[in-house]
Parts: sequence; structure tokens; C-alpha cells
Amino acid sequence: MIDFNVTVLGCGSAVPSKMSNPSSQLISYRNKQFLIDCGEGTQMQMLKYSVRHRNLDHVLISHLHGDHFYGLIGLISTFHLTGRKSALHIYAPRKLQTLLDHQLQTTATKLSFPLLFNALEDFGERNIYEDDYLIVRSFPLKHSTPTWGFLIKEKETKRRIDKSFIKQYKPAVNEISLILDGKGFLTKDGTFLENGAITHDPPQGRSYAYCSDTAYEPFISKFISGVNLLYHEATFDNSLQSKAHEWLHSTAAEAAMIAKQSDAKKLLIGHFSSRHNNYELLLKEAKVVFENTIICQEGETYQIV
Amino acid sequence: MIDFNVTVLGCGSAVPSKMSNPSSQLISYRNKQFLIDCGEGTQMQMLKYSVRHRNLDHVLISHLHGDHFYGLIGLISTFHLTGRKSALHIYAPRKLQTLLDHQLQTTATKLSFPLLFNALEDFGERNIYEDDYLIVRSFPLKHSTPTWGFLIKEKETKRRIDKSFIKQYKPAVNEISLILDGKGFLTKDGTFLENGAITHDPPQGRSYAYCSDTAYEPFISKFISGVNLLYHEATFDNSLQSKAHEWLHSTAAEAAMIAKQSDAKKLLIGHFSSRHNNYELLLKEAKVVFENTIICQEGETYQIV
Repeated sequence: MIDFNVTVLGCGSAVPSKMSNPSSQLISYRNKQFLIDCGEGTQMQMLKYSVRHRNLDHVLISHLHGDHFYGLIGLISTFHLTGRKSALHIYAPRKLQTLLDHQLQTTATKLSFPLLFNALEDFGERNIYEDDYLIVRSFPLKHSTPTWGFLIKEKETKRRIDKSFIKQYKPAVNEISLILDGKGFLTKDGTFLENGAITHDPPQGRSYAYCSDTAYEPFISKFISGVNLLYHEATFDNSLQSKAHEWLHSTAAEAAMIAKQSDAKKLLIGHFSSRHNNYELLLKEAKVVFENTIICQEGETYQIV
Repeated sequence: MIDFNVTVLGCGSAVPSKMSNPSSQLISYRNKQFLIDCGEGTQMQMLKYSVRHRNLDHVLISHLHGDHFYGLIGLISTFHLTGRKSALHIYAPRKLQTLLDHQLQTTATKLSFPLLFNALEDFGERNIYEDDYLIVRSFPLKHSTPTWGFLIKEKETKRRIDKSFIKQYKPAVNEISLILDGKGFLTKDGTFLENGAITHDPPQGRSYAYCSDTAYEPFISKFISGVNLLYHEATFDNSLQSKAHEWLHSTAAEAAMIAKQSDAKKLLIGHFSSRHNNYELLLKEAKVVFENTIICQEGETYQIV
């Protein structure tokens, strides 16, 4: 199976603690890498955990709270100082573009590579990136500033032709192409074989969803239906639910409710408040609602299966 | 002796490495703290090394290269989120003020405390801070963008009255005051004692100088004459002297030459290039010129004596 994974670089919230850095994750698929959020110190976390990022051409920023983007200018600066040539694509709220320009101007930096900005502006679902294998989609979350979640999804592949059929009938290249497009096959003795009889269902496209920061909001589940791995913020435990509501964050149990409603295969929780110095209670409270929950560990890589 | 020390939070250069964070130092004297430079990750370094900073009201930024200030907005943000009330004074090139304003505006942050900006604009020596015990002075360095060095100096105290004189003659409060102002003393039997005979020289004011980033420039030594502890950048070893000249940085040997010319008591070298993965050679090359040289260690506190 093609490797599709996420490496957590930071899973703390707004105030960093000894235990956790601000938000950042690196998603790898084939020879592509996507960085989601880039809190202060993200580049140091990459060094600390020996995370290679030479295929990183796309950075997605969920919203403009500092703990999700204060590390971006430093990463861009390091790319520049180490002579990067290839374009870096940023997907973020529009205001970040003028701020990045201002930062580069203040340090009199003329970048060694093109910085291409794609503004997140609309509040529906939208495909923001697509290649032969993947689609990346943004969708709205519910927070105190415009905030987007992201879904990274393998494309559905074509049906697979049964090996014994190929061995027996040796179809020509153009015939194979027709079968992959859903057509049947006429054998030399005049028997017509239906497409369903000579092909198998393709493996289902896997997907990863990132939902941070957000209040508990059931509509989110429709954007991520059937997701293989869901990262959902779980800033507080149940005892701080009123704070979660006030600040438009979620409790671990609420994250688990979204996992359940969206029929996710697995839930990864993070964005922990610096008030918590032990995440076991958060895990326990989530598991009551959704058993297949795990806790973010910085430096860990999780397979999306 | 009153504690006067510097804690090194980062002593790397523009590209961070596994070994070192970008520039930052915390200077403590009595109940005052001064942060000099604030590279990305400075607040995490404070957490990592359990460095307390509750008396930190003054931040000095030497110049506008990112490795010297990209961590400032994150530190300000944490102060805000944890409810700071007291004013924070920033001493930095003027352009940083508009950038900080832009950053706060982008994150819709109305700070919980006053942020007071003092622009470094003139290129001579200037007192930028003064209280009953200390003077902080800025002076020009030689780099590819306007850059300032800083001298933090204990004020000269008054002469000290000899204890045996006090025991023998029991001077009144107003007489003590006159003696401290340099006057002599008339004993009851009519003998006049000169001030010099009944007082001792006060302990000399200690001082700390921060010189980073800068090319080797002999004029610097006149601003820091007789300094107790000199921090001077030593980005490269001798083999990379041409790069040091090209990029207006110094070699370790050049840092040592400034220490020698300024008659410094001790030299602390830092701002190491990420090309160097061992700093022993830098130390060796500096010691050839100036024996009392030490290497910056992140998390270490150095007494200024």
C-alpha cells in the first residue's frame, strides 16, 4: 500500500508548554508533502525529530491565530537562506499574504524561490489542490475567527481487471482500456462477459481530516464522512466544557462525537490546553464516546489506513 | 555582591540547527530583566531551561534580521494570553513597530498591557535606559542592515565610609551624607580628616556588552572599554574568514581581537554558523588572541564579575 501518513510536529494550543509546541503537522503521500499549520518553532521541531521535508511544496494555514502560523516566516526564511528554488504554495486567509510581504520587506529579503499565495475566502467546501492521486479540500469550521478544516483524500482509482480473466483471454491494450472504463468483453467464441464479472472494486480512497480550531459543530461531520483518520482539536476536558463553549474550542468528548457522527475509522486528538499536564483524562473521556481514539504525540508518525 | 548575570537562550545564527537556537539572551540585575534579541523559539527555550522572566519589562532588538526577532510576536502573544498588565518596553529599529502593529492587527489582538516602543535611530552612542543602578547604552555595529550593540553598566556608586571611623567618631546622619558627597570631617578635638582618609573607593561598576551581528570593526572597542563580560559574535572559524568579510560577520579570532582592544575581562562567543557542528575550533582560535574566552552554552547562566 502506498505510504500515506501524518507526522505531528506540534499539538499544543495558544500558550506553549514544556510538553507541547504550537500546532503543525506534515502529511506525506508518495512524493508530495503538505504542512498543515506552522506554529512558532515548527522548523526546530523538524530538526529535533529529524523530519525530512524536501518534498514540501504546499503549506495550509487553517486560521490567523498566532499559534497556527507564527513559525511560517522562519521556515520561509530558512528555505531562502538554504537556496530553495522551487515554488512554495501557501493556502491561507488573505490577510496572511500582506503580512508575509511586510515581514519580507522589513528584513529586506528577496526570496530565492516563488511564493505563491492561494487565499481561503469562501465558506463552502472547495477543492484547493488536485493532482493525479490526491484531492485537498477546505471546509468551514466554527471558531472566533474565519477558520478552515482540510480533507486530504486519495482519488478513487478505476476498477481492477481480474488476473485470471487476463491470463485466459489475453485482451488487447485498447480492450483493457475499455474494460477499465466500465465496458464488458466479447470473447472469441461470442460470449459477452459483463464488466462486473471480469473486474473487482478498486481499493477505497483513504482520507485524512484536520479540524482545528473549532467548537463542537455537528455540520462538520458531513464534510468528512467516512474519513480514515480524523484529527480533531480537544483543547479541554469535560470539567472545562463551559470554557470550551466560551472560546469556541472543543472538549475531548465533543471531538469524539464528531468522529462518531462522521463514521471516522480512527480519531487523533490534540491542541491541548497548557492547563492540562496529563492527557490521559482527555483520552479516557473521548474513548467513552468513540473507542478508537488516540492521543497526539509530538514527533510521532501515524499511518492513514 | 549583587547578582548580575546573563542567561543564553539561543546562540545560533540565521539558519537554526539541532545544536542551537537563534539569538536571545536574558540579562538579570536586582529585580530587573532585559531580553536582548528574541529569535524564533525564545519562549520555548525559556520553558525548556526553566528560566523565569517575571521581571522582564525591557526587550532590546539589535537589528531586523529574522533570527534576532521572529520570536518576539509569540512572546508578546503569550504575555497577553496569560493576562500581563505591566508595560513592556521595546527598543528596536523603527520598522519593527509597524510590523508588530500589523501582526497584532492580523490576529485581531488588543493587548492586555501597554507595549511601549523606543526607536533606535541615531548612530552614535546613546543612553536608552537608566534607573538608580543601571545604564543601558546603544552603539553602532557594522552589518548589512542598521545594527546596534548594547552596553549594560552598573552606575558608579558613592565612596564607602571606613567602618572604624564610624565606630570611633559616630558621625550624625547629615555628616555621613556630606562625607558621601566628598567632604571631610571635623572631629570634636578640632582635627580635620580629609575625605580620602575616612572613605574607600567604591567597587567599580560592572558592565556587559552585546555585539551581534557585526563585522570585525576596531571602533567598537571604544564603546565597551574595560567591559567585564563581552559577548561578541563569532559566526565562522578562520577558514571561512572571506565569508565573514563578505557577509559582514566575524570570525572567532576577530571577536577575540575586539576583546583584547577593549581590554575586556572575559569574552563569550556565540552566533555560530550552522556549518559548524563543533565549536572547539572556534574556541581554540579565539584563545590564541584572547585567553579568557568561553563558548556560549544554551541554557547556561554567566555571572558578570
